[in-house]
Amino acid sequence: MKAEKSLEAGKASTPKRGVNRGLSIIDFILRIFALMGTLGSAIAMGTTSETLPFFTQFVRFKAEYNDLPTFTFFVAANAVVSVYLVLSLVLSIFHIVRAGSTKSRIILIFFDTAMLALLTAAASAAAAIVYLAHKGNARANWFAICQQFNSFCERISGSLIGSYAGMVLFILLILLSAIAISKR
Amino acid sequence: MKAEKSLEAGKASTPKRGVNRGLSIIDFILRIFALMGTLGSAIAMGTTSETLPFFTQFVRFKAEYNDLPTFTFFVAANAVVSVYLVLSLVLSIFHIVRAGSTKSRIILIFFDTAMLALLTAAASAAAAIVYLAHKGNARANWFAICQQFNSFCERISGSLIGSYAGMVLFILLILLSAIAISKR
Repeated sequence: MKAEKSLEAGKASTPKRGVNRGLSIIDFILRIFALMGTLGSAIAMGTTSETLPFFTQFVRFKAEYNDLPTFTFFVAANAVVSVYLVLSLVLSIFHIVRAGSTKSRIILIFFDTAMLALLTAAASAAAAIVYLAHKGNARANWFAICQQFNSFCERISGSLIGSYAGMVLFILLILLSAIAISKR
Repeated sequence: MKAEKSLEAGKASTPKRGVNRGLSIIDFILRIFALMGTLGSAIAMGTTSETLPFFTQFVRFKAEYNDLPTFTFFVAANAVVSVYLVLSLVLSIFHIVRAGSTKSRIILIFFDTAMLALLTAAASAAAAIVYLAHKGNARANWFAICQQFNSFCERISGSLIGSYAGMVLFILLILLSAIAISKR
């Protein structure tokens, strides 16, 4: 290890740079998977609406995702994270080409962490409302709306999956960047 | 920069190690602040209950934090993060003493990230329910319970602050660790 370090003086040694290039390629692939997850979530939630087949003279029973502000936030946050992931692909390619750079990786860790927080906030706020829609709450007199809007509920529940997959991938991405910095 | 690196061969140079020690001390202090935030949140939410001054023959109007499962999760998550922060203080002290270690910092980044996700999930799920308690939702026929349980609502809203402060501190902690690894 010590002998290796003295070889590194001034310039990173080739095998370590190879490891870093490998990590950067994995980073790139994970970002694409995360993008598919968050984009899928945004689209699945954003296109959710259900109109019940019965209606009265005055009221037509319709449920849309933007009836609940939390779901609007969910769509917006997933869209923001998706755009960020597309932009971060550029930096990821830069890391594949220049495996030795460190500062840009620290910037990436910071933004990845912030985006992880945003995505987690959106996903778990939506999950809290989805839980309420399924189960209701007797003490607060909030009724389970899923008994009426069945396919609406299935759709909003399903659209959470992409976000949760994205969260796991973000944690892996941060870990990968930290390892890449230490291997520099 | 290149001249400095050749000096480092085999052993980190003294000024860089000094910077790392400084970062570790900031890390230690931020962890204590984060601990105060999450512990405060857990206690504030965990002791929340309100009994209304009027009651009928059969029903006594009482609101407790564990009427809503999301708030129970909030208390549990904040308690878990608090315990983690206490344990991580040991590693933080270790980093002050041995400023050069890298592997333990990577482990710390991984767990910090996971704890950030847990804390964010708990805080934003609770925030979604608190928002609902304040505003209600006309489309889903969920009523704002804050009109009756006023001090209960103030308490649960206030107890979110500690968690959000903790989230910001965790993002800073991850950034500090990444910088410390790069300065090794």
